[in-house]
Amino acid sequence: MMDSNMTPHHFTAQVYYEDTDHSGVVYHANYLKFFERAREDIMGTKVLADMWHKHEIGFAIYKINIGYHEGAIFGDRLDIRTTWKKEGHYRIIFFHEAWRPDGKKAAVTCTLELVCLGPNKKLMPIPDLDFLKSKE
Amino acid sequence: MMDSNMTPHHFTAQVYYEDTDHSGVVYHANYLKFFERAREDIMGTKVLADMWHKHEIGFAIYKINIGYHEGAIFGDRLDIRTTWKKEGHYRIIFFHEAWRPDGKKAAVTCTLELVCLGPNKKLMPIPDLDFLKSKE
Amino acid sequence: MMDSNMTPHHFTAQVYYEDTDHSGVVYHANYLKFFERAREDIMGTKVLADMWHKHEIGFAIYKINIGYHEGAIFGDRLDIRTTWKKEGHYRIIFFHEAWRPDGKKAAVTCTLELVCLGPNKKLMPIPDLDFLKSKE
Amino acid sequence: MMDSNMTPHHFTAQVYYEDTDHSGVVYHANYLKFFERAREDIMGTKVLADMWHKHEIGFAIYKINIGYHEGAIFGDRLDIRTTWKKEGHYRIIFFHEAWRPDGKKAAVTCTLELVCLGPNKKLMPIPDLDFLKSKE
Repeated sequence: MMDSNMTPHHFTAQVYYEDTDHSGVVYHANYLKFFERAREDIMGTKVLADMWHKHEIGFAIYKINIGYHEGAIFGDRLDIRTTWKKEGHYRIIFFHEAWRPDGKKAAVTCTLELVCLGPNKKLMPIPDLDFLKSKE
Repeated sequence: MMDSNMTPHHFTAQVYYEDTDHSGVVYHANYLKFFERAREDIMGTKVLADMWHKHEIGFAIYKINIGYHEGAIFGDRLDIRTTWKKEGHYRIIFFHEAWRPDGKKAAVTCTLELVCLGPNKKLMPIPDLDFLKSKE
Repeated sequence: MMDSNMTPHHFTAQVYYEDTDHSGVVYHANYLKFFERAREDIMGTKVLADMWHKHEIGFAIYKINIGYHEGAIFGDRLDIRTTWKKEGHYRIIFFHEAWRPDGKKAAVTCTLELVCLGPNKKLMPIPDLDFLKSKE
Repeated sequence: MMDSNMTPHHFTAQVYYEDTDHSGVVYHANYLKFFERAREDIMGTKVLADMWHKHEIGFAIYKINIGYHEGAIFGDRLDIRTTWKKEGHYRIIFFHEAWRPDGKKAAVTCTLELVCLGPNKKLMPIPDLDFLKSKE
């Protein structure tokens, strides 16, 4: 068992007016929203909603590194490619890329570390969730 | 020909962390984003992107009335139901509703008037777009 | 005693990148954020934070009417002018205007009705808060 | 001449409803908005607006590293402390910290690299702006 998944998960994020700024491209902070939507698609929204509403358990972001290489524009359907791995008992690392249609390389790349917080925001080991199980 | 469409168009807007606020429900302004995504789905994003990037023509919002009846929460998949009609040569009116899963009535309702602006933000007649053609 | 205040309250909202969209002006939904910041300035953030964190009481928006007359741009320092009145025991109505620097008329106007929700989102009478006391 | 400024610049960012999410703290991406407001305060909004509207020159973000240590809540007035330095002809590096009221250490820390883009998004040397001049 590997506790990781290195075959990219694909999620489509469409660029709407709300995502752009007056320079004509997507506002830099908004890629973090696209990446979070992808993670929720991977983890399962119902799983996350139940963890939160029934057990007060949620994921918190601990660290983010982002690189911006090209600006996405209104109308782009971005392909968000994500791989991830569990590290130790307390951390999950996600590797996100945002690809523009017909892009030759990723427009934006991101490495993001998550930890898990229980009631009263107390750090707890990552629960044994389905998306962390090896696909092999 | 009717220049209107009274059979609701359906669009799904999933409620993510980004959409909620600390009171536990969707932040009031964010429903306007869901409604805009639905309008772009209706009008065709490629049509809108081409209008904007090639001809500097875009739609601008002139008036909005919103009623809030129930708060949507994280994990909800909202059904955005939209009808619309053209009024005169210069206005399109959209009627949006956001329905929660298993909702007995609309959680949020919205009437929104659009006008069309050409280069230099000059008011112009609504172009003859496909989504305005009667479905009959 | 009047339970209203018809001398406008002034609040400055600066337009940042985050507020604009690729059409070059402020994204329509973002004026609602400016108006909310003004209301919190009027009501007192500490009062609101205490109501929420200690008593689980908060204000919820019930209805909004907005009119858009001119687009604000990056760098504008908007003057948000607000008056308000209490109506009956359960509603407060706010009248907001966003003025651009050197504007001849309001760029955006908004009428907004608030109600008060206690624990479990139960409707309750508007509390006897300082900002509702007549200034006369 | 140093092309750097290591005495922190202070900027206050108030946490409003719009900034929080349903977990009760500020949504992770929104600290990037606070940091950008601080940078615009440092650079001078009028300078930036003129660069953009008159010369089509703007700053673009190239890289960001963020660390999250504590969550800010509704009503917090965050002290955004910023230092910066120019590196070579093409890069400015900003060091941002968000401090909660009575915080013992920074709640969020961020290192951010900016480059300068001229018309057609072409990379250009950093202009000789006032905020880059040594204060000594």
